[in-house]
Amino acid sequence: MNAQSVCQNQSPTAAILLIGNELLSGRTQDKNLAYMATRLAEHGIRVTETRIIPDIESVIVATLNTLRENNTYVFTTGGIGPTHDDITADCVALAFGVAIDIHDAAKQTLMTYWAGRGIEPNDDRLRMARIPVGATLIDNPVSAAPGFCVGNVYVMAGVPKIMQAMFDAVLPGLDRGAVISSVSVRCNLGEGTLAGPLRELQSDHSNIDIGSYPGKQDGKFAVTLVARGTDGEELAAIEQKLRQLIANAGGDILPLA
Amino acid sequence: MNAQSVCQNQSPTAAILLIGNELLSGRTQDKNLAYMATRLAEHGIRVTETRIIPDIESVIVATLNTLRENNTYVFTTGGIGPTHDDITADCVALAFGVAIDIHDAAKQTLMTYWAGRGIEPNDDRLRMARIPVGATLIDNPVSAAPGFCVGNVYVMAGVPKIMQAMFDAVLPGLDRGAVISSVSVRCNLGEGTLAGPLRELQSDHSNIDIGSYPGKQDGKFAVTLVARGTDGEELAAIEQKLRQLIANAGGDILPLA
Repeated sequence: MNAQSVCQNQSPTAAILLIGNELLSGRTQDKNLAYMATRLAEHGIRVTETRIIPDIESVIVATLNTLRENNTYVFTTGGIGPTHDDITADCVALAFGVAIDIHDAAKQTLMTYWAGRGIEPNDDRLRMARIPVGATLIDNPVSAAPGFCVGNVYVMAGVPKIMQAMFDAVLPGLDRGAVISSVSVRCNLGEGTLAGPLRELQSDHSNIDIGSYPGKQDGKFAVTLVARGTDGEELAAIEQKLRQLIANAGGDILPLA
Repeated sequence: MNAQSVCQNQSPTAAILLIGNELLSGRTQDKNLAYMATRLAEHGIRVTETRIIPDIESVIVATLNTLRENNTYVFTTGGIGPTHDDITADCVALAFGVAIDIHDAAKQTLMTYWAGRGIEPNDDRLRMARIPVGATLIDNPVSAAPGFCVGNVYVMAGVPKIMQAMFDAVLPGLDRGAVISSVSVRCNLGEGTLAGPLRELQSDHSNIDIGSYPGKQDGKFAVTLVARGTDGEELAAIEQKLRQLIANAGGDILPLA
């Protein structure tokens, strides 16, 4: 069992649910997970898992119910537009066992936005105002169609710029845990050389999650050592120990990529 | 329920399991899913879901057991290096209820690779030869440390170049379904304008999965319409219908980005 399972049990947790066939077909490269994960760590919310699932009602409903049961928060992206494959709002209503209907304030926001742009409302466009009963709206400053929150589930657009605006609006209102930060040191040693002393360091610091990530720099193998946790002083001490450990093994520190 | 749940029931299915704290912290942007998903579609294997989970034993074991039960194949990436946070091989052994031990052929491959590079074997490096009993090795032409297959689970490295080589070695031996291909048409209409005719088109072609993906091109809103399925003639017909549908609504076709 790795340190991470132990170190932040007091923090709120989050699961991220990325919804959309295009993510599973390889057509679209997700960019939302990294954005949310980085911001959540700064807020002290630990991401326990991410799932990427297709636009299939039964799958979305079952996954939502599992994730919202097991986490403080669930953040979803995708499937809240006007087309036939946008079924997330209906699935959230089903998962919570509530009705879904046109939300007056959402409709008003959209009508005003469309009027200003000469866009005619139609039944499909108005689907974007269909919101599970009892939900709170999440403002969309980019294209007006709102996200929403039901219980501990936050439902956001898939388009990164819109998702980010919605997420930024939501984040300040969420419970805070201790900020999760990290220190990184890069070197030119192989993982096999570092593994012994790293294992020892990890067992001395069970509150900190130490990872080793091989890669390349200027065509040569390089390893980045990363320590993550909530105790800034402990992380600073570990950074020094990582540098010492690399020096002891005859390695050079490389600039972080 | 979307078309995709209906259209490829006869095809083999796959779940993708990306293992590693660095993916959930936002430090590392996954590139393996898109590679695998694209190749699997060409091979006629449908990806049902992807999960991204941390390096925590209980989570990895439980997730592996769920995914291997529900899919023809499971492909994992990450956690098979020599350091303390590389626990995937042990977790796979636990999930299957088999022992794990040094695999003679894996050890021999590594010893030869190390000898040629003046690398001294040590206990940590030899961890990369620890393979669940009964597993089949997957060749690693980049850095020798093998992946492996137990039952329907394929365990591969997280470093994209190595993962790709392992995956390419494995793919030809997997069951084939009908090749899943797609056609795409991009236009300058809003999704709300397209939604009605698209919904009709989808209901006329229940074997095809039609998606609508908004984005920007040259600073202006653009929508890409994508149809995916296994019937090439039907897809070609749909491409024409999509072009017609755009023209009927007064839109222009844009070059695909």
